[in-house]
This record gives sequence, structure tokens and C-alpha cells, in this order.
Amino acid sequence: MKKVDLRSDCPINYALEYLGDKWTLLVIRDLVFEGKKFFKDFQNSQEGIATNILSDRLKRLEALGIVSSAIDKKQRRQKIYRLSPKGADLVPILVEIIIWSSKHKDGLNVNPVFLQKLSADKSGMIKAIQASIGSTQFSAHQ
Amino acid sequence: MKKVDLRSDCPINYALEYLGDKWTLLVIRDLVFEGKKFFKDFQNSQEGIATNILSDRLKRLEALGIVSSAIDKKQRRQKIYRLSPKGADLVPILVEIIIWSSKHKDGLNVNPVFLQKLSADKSGMIKAIQASIGSTQFSAHQ
Repeated sequence: MKKVDLRSDCPINYALEYLGDKWTLLVIRDLVFEGKKFFKDFQNSQEGIATNILSDRLKRLEALGIVSSAIDKKQRRQKIYRLSPKGADLVPILVEIIIWSSKHKDGLNVNPVFLQKLSADKSGMIKAIQASIGSTQFSAHQ
Repeated sequence: MKKVDLRSDCPINYALEYLGDKWTLLVIRDLVFEGKKFFKDFQNSQEGIATNILSDRLKRLEALGIVSSAIDKKQRRQKIYRLSPKGADLVPILVEIIIWSSKHKDGLNVNPVFLQKLSADKSGMIKAIQASIGSTQFSAHQ
């Protein structure tokens, strides 16, 4: 990975330089909540990510150590993508984003049971979500 | 504000459509932690935000109800910017970003006392930060 000169040494800036765009955290969302693993799975998300953007974001996430990939022998030798522990550590950020959006925007697709569980025991729920990565056990959507 | 058709009804997507870029959350950071209030204060941040980008982001944040502005009679009738309750609700997201970056990137400027306080009582610390907005009582930096 090419060394990037950071704009500053602020921790918020660091995350924004690498993850601050309209697509990267949607790929993380699909890995965390939707059990997505293959390129075509991410392509089929509702937001309609362009192939070149998806390809770029997956490469960047691998270079950052947030995602790893391997050839899946069962699935016609397609690349299978997995979230690393560094990627799983993004779950609390996703959770706080879900809480903020749900509070301030009506009409979004948010599972009320998911929100209730977060409200009752946020740190326990975050651990359960992290343990479920790769499955579709938890969905923030209805 | 022009009505925007959201790409989806996902709550993560909602936040990304409005806040997903490399600059917006730096303006929020400056309002939350640095006590910044005037256009020139935000301009002077370490990351070197361009005037046109800063102007655009402040307008968008006002349109979204995250920031409000008023003419400050004492300060040569400059516009003074303040974070709304909707904006203060972004603090938990900023806090989780600080925790993630501090854990996964060495050499960032993070105040260890700030991290210790978060580790000891995250929700209490978030409330204290929200109550301190407009001052420089808490800084994530050293």
C-alpha cells in the first residue's frame, strides 16, 4: 500500500481519510449484517454501487487490513471476502450511526427489536453482532 | 433544501448520504471539541479545508438542522455557528471513531486521559462532552 501523508494526526481525521465516503461503510455493513462474501453479493445491494467503485473499495479495505480475501474452491474459485478483527471493531461506529439516523429521520427501514436490544444492553449487543459476522443473524433492517 | 431521493431506506445509508465525506465530521469535531464558532475558526483547522468546501458543508449542515447560525453582534456581525441537539447526538459516533482509530493506528494525537475516561464510563463521558459543547473543556487531542 502506498504510504499516504495524513492531513493531520487527529484520530477522527485518520478514519475519515480512509473510510470517509458514501460507499465504504456500506460494504462493511454488508459484511457485518448481511452475511455477504462475494463480489456479486455486494454488487446486488440496494444502493447500486458501481463495479469500479466496489472493486476500488474492496482493494482499499484489504490494503488497510479491514478485509481479507481468499479464493473459495467450492464457489468456482471466486474470491471470498471476510472482515478482519480491525473491521469487526467498526461495529460500534455502525451501531451509533444506526441509532442516530433512526432517531432523526422518519421512514427508514429499522428493525424496532434491534433498536430495543441496543437500548437495553448496547455493549452486549455489539459483542453479539461481532460474534455473528458472516451470518445473517442480526439485521438492522426489518 | 432540495429534496434528495435517498439511495435506499437503510439507516447507515442515510447518514452516509449526508455526512459521508472527508470533511463534514471534521467541522462537527471542531464544534464539539474545539469550541469553534466562526467561519475563520474552522478555516484554521490543521487539515486545511478549502473555503468553498467549508462554506458548502456549513450550508448543508444548517439545511439538515445539525448546525444553526446567527449574526453575532459583538463580533463585527459575523455569523456564529452552533451545534443543534441533532448535531450533539453525533457525539457517540465521533467517540467510537476516536476509539477505533486510536486502537488501530499508532502515532495519532490522542489524549490518554480522554481514552481512559471513555474506557471507565463511556456513556457518562459522552454526556459530559455533550454538555461541554461550545467550550474547549474536553479535547481528544493532547
